[in-house]
Amino acid sequence: MPYNIAVPVRDMDELIVRPVKVFREKLGLEVLLGHEATRIDRQNKEVFGYDQNGKEFSCPYDKLLIATGASPIIPDLPGFDLEGVMPLNSLDQGRRIKNFLATKKVNKVVIIGMGYIALEMAEAMAARDIQVDMVKPRKRFLPWMNKELSARVWAELQDQGVNLYPGHDLQAIEQENSQFRVIAQDVELKADLIIVATGIKPNSELAEEANLELGPHRSIAVDKNLRTSDGDIFSAGDCADAYHLVTGKKTWIPLALRANRAGRAVADNVTKKNTKLDGVAGTAVFKVFDLEVAKTGIDQNEAIEAGFSPVEIVIQANSRAHVYPGAQTIFVYMLGDKDSGRLLGAQMVGKEGVAHRINAPAVAIHNKMTVQDFSQADLAYAPPFSPVWDPMLVAANQLIKNM
Amino acid sequence: MPYNIAVPVRDMDELIVRPVKVFREKLGLEVLLGHEATRIDRQNKEVFGYDQNGKEFSCPYDKLLIATGASPIIPDLPGFDLEGVMPLNSLDQGRRIKNFLATKKVNKVVIIGMGYIALEMAEAMAARDIQVDMVKPRKRFLPWMNKELSARVWAELQDQGVNLYPGHDLQAIEQENSQFRVIAQDVELKADLIIVATGIKPNSELAEEANLELGPHRSIAVDKNLRTSDGDIFSAGDCADAYHLVTGKKTWIPLALRANRAGRAVADNVTKKNTKLDGVAGTAVFKVFDLEVAKTGIDQNEAIEAGFSPVEIVIQANSRAHVYPGAQTIFVYMLGDKDSGRLLGAQMVGKEGVAHRINAPAVAIHNKMTVQDFSQADLAYAPPFSPVWDPMLVAANQLIKNM
Repeated sequence: MPYNIAVPVRDMDELIVRPVKVFREKLGLEVLLGHEATRIDRQNKEVFGYDQNGKEFSCPYDKLLIATGASPIIPDLPGFDLEGVMPLNSLDQGRRIKNFLATKKVNKVVIIGMGYIALEMAEAMAARDIQVDMVKPRKRFLPWMNKELSARVWAELQDQGVNLYPGHDLQAIEQENSQFRVIAQDVELKADLIIVATGIKPNSELAEEANLELGPHRSIAVDKNLRTSDGDIFSAGDCADAYHLVTGKKTWIPLALRANRAGRAVADNVTKKNTKLDGVAGTAVFKVFDLEVAKTGIDQNEAIEAGFSPVEIVIQANSRAHVYPGAQTIFVYMLGDKDSGRLLGAQMVGKEGVAHRINAPAVAIHNKMTVQDFSQADLAYAPPFSPVWDPMLVAANQLIKNM
Repeated sequence: MPYNIAVPVRDMDELIVRPVKVFREKLGLEVLLGHEATRIDRQNKEVFGYDQNGKEFSCPYDKLLIATGASPIIPDLPGFDLEGVMPLNSLDQGRRIKNFLATKKVNKVVIIGMGYIALEMAEAMAARDIQVDMVKPRKRFLPWMNKELSARVWAELQDQGVNLYPGHDLQAIEQENSQFRVIAQDVELKADLIIVATGIKPNSELAEEANLELGPHRSIAVDKNLRTSDGDIFSAGDCADAYHLVTGKKTWIPLALRANRAGRAVADNVTKKNTKLDGVAGTAVFKVFDLEVAKTGIDQNEAIEAGFSPVEIVIQANSRAHVYPGAQTIFVYMLGDKDSGRLLGAQMVGKEGVAHRINAPAVAIHNKMTVQDFSQADLAYAPPFSPVWDPMLVAANQLIKNM
């Protein structure tokens, strides 16, 4: 949605991959919109709820999929329910933001939160010539990221004129005519529009009430076949958990690829095929203005928590060979386990050649590869794309020396 | 060198990473330039040869490294020794080409050969507004590449005004004043300058005369420690062979990263550290005008030859999410082994997002990953960089269906 919101003329409906018509007419599925499921009767295998007229309905099942997604966490503070205070969790909310921008004079936006959706929204607002302030309670900017790398992202936002206020507890939002004020500890920020991007939580209430087992962050616990603790009930998407390939433990990382893949795996598993998903590597990428920011695996804190003996390195390298003009600096952070030699994680920041580079350590993590073995990887080299030693290999070679 | 030759004002010396002074003064090494080694006395551990004045010299060794590189293959045909007929195997040759371009009127170049150096030179010449014709004996353009993908590269060259004449046996080069004529079967091509890029051969004569074991294409056979069949003699660089990680057999793929890595490994192995190099995955990338072209692993013919049961797929996918403007088409070719399920190779062509993408299947090949496991890889997704399902995952998912 941020990329759609950035461009006034684009229709939010472009984001719909398959309209409901396709499901009904082409796939022949019965789709009950406006029906809220409120209870699962596991004994009798039936779902109960209410339609849009408040009339109770029930629906029997052989197999059930809970794909309820996630919802934004809205701080329970005064003013967060005001008209001009908007989360970004549905196409309708996206339309509301676009409509607000189209009909009101918005020169200044405050974004609450600094995660990747918040950062993408900062870029979207800047693309519409709107001044952006960002504020959040936690002191550390991109807390999962190595500090040298997050400082690079911070610098990019400052270069682009975005003001960042981390470490300010939120207290209230106040409105005076069409002007809002975000009141936080030690700072007050004026805004014509406020976007709330303070993270999401899994929609697991229905599962919880049905006494299904929960995972991290109260997500719905599933096995590798996407089965919940009830063998006839599956869960997939942002509401469900997954195994982390580095720690072997459950994790909740609500991202599009896993959600999509899990949905397809459930389709396999409720029909004839047995599809097991091993888990997630923790790979993610986002764009912030001219920067590409990517990660895979775990960070140092997660490594300590999981019982590893983490060793880390940060290097800077050129994105292209020294003989080829236009090189940018790429920061590479790499984390290894001193005991097993395993590659535990990688992070990268740079103006080019970051987004796809991260897939190499991601695949390495799938294979529980050691840093030593990764350092021998036969990676692609040509002057326009990389130095002879890819920045990732430089990082791996450096990291080995500390292991 | 092609990228340097493309820009008149750039000095060829920019390509020198470390001048000989560094080796002599900073590293304290004795460097004998202008000394040709002509014989190795393995029994007495001594190298013999001649200095630039034709005076014999000898040099004893404890350990010996043969890093003699490779030489261009110049067809043994009339006219290939003419002044305006130039290979591209040394900085001096590069300087000669640049000097020729600076001092003569060159409107038209014929490039003999269509490998990646030939293609990079085509781009370099076009960047200097020189019309390019390319000719070679073999009928198939990029013979290692899947035909749908090589057709895409062909189309790009045609779009850029380069004329391609594969399948024409070379007969002679003739000169009339400052004009050359390349005479091939059924075609004659006029040129002001002729560049010969018809491949290279390893400089293994010295090793062969010393009765060291040879590998594919008469390269110098080395084990994983870069030792030749004589335990005190090592070889590294474009003259030496390597194990191929897919076939487990010896191969000769003279590329910069392996050469560099092998040199460092020899340094380890002649000092205290034991460094073994497992081998090469066959990863390579090059740029042809606006196209990125990349490969890793083996092709179908190599797979059949190595006893695999190859299954292949070609898909086309967008380089970015459908919601993000500016997407380009990426062609992905993927090759798997029906018997073991292993991923054997991948090839990609596209205007963006190809060069670094290839590193993911390259790492998969290092780990002997199956196509099925690769299809579960947690790859990076954000709208500016990829669809939710990365083109490589789309290819893997398709390929599985045929396996």
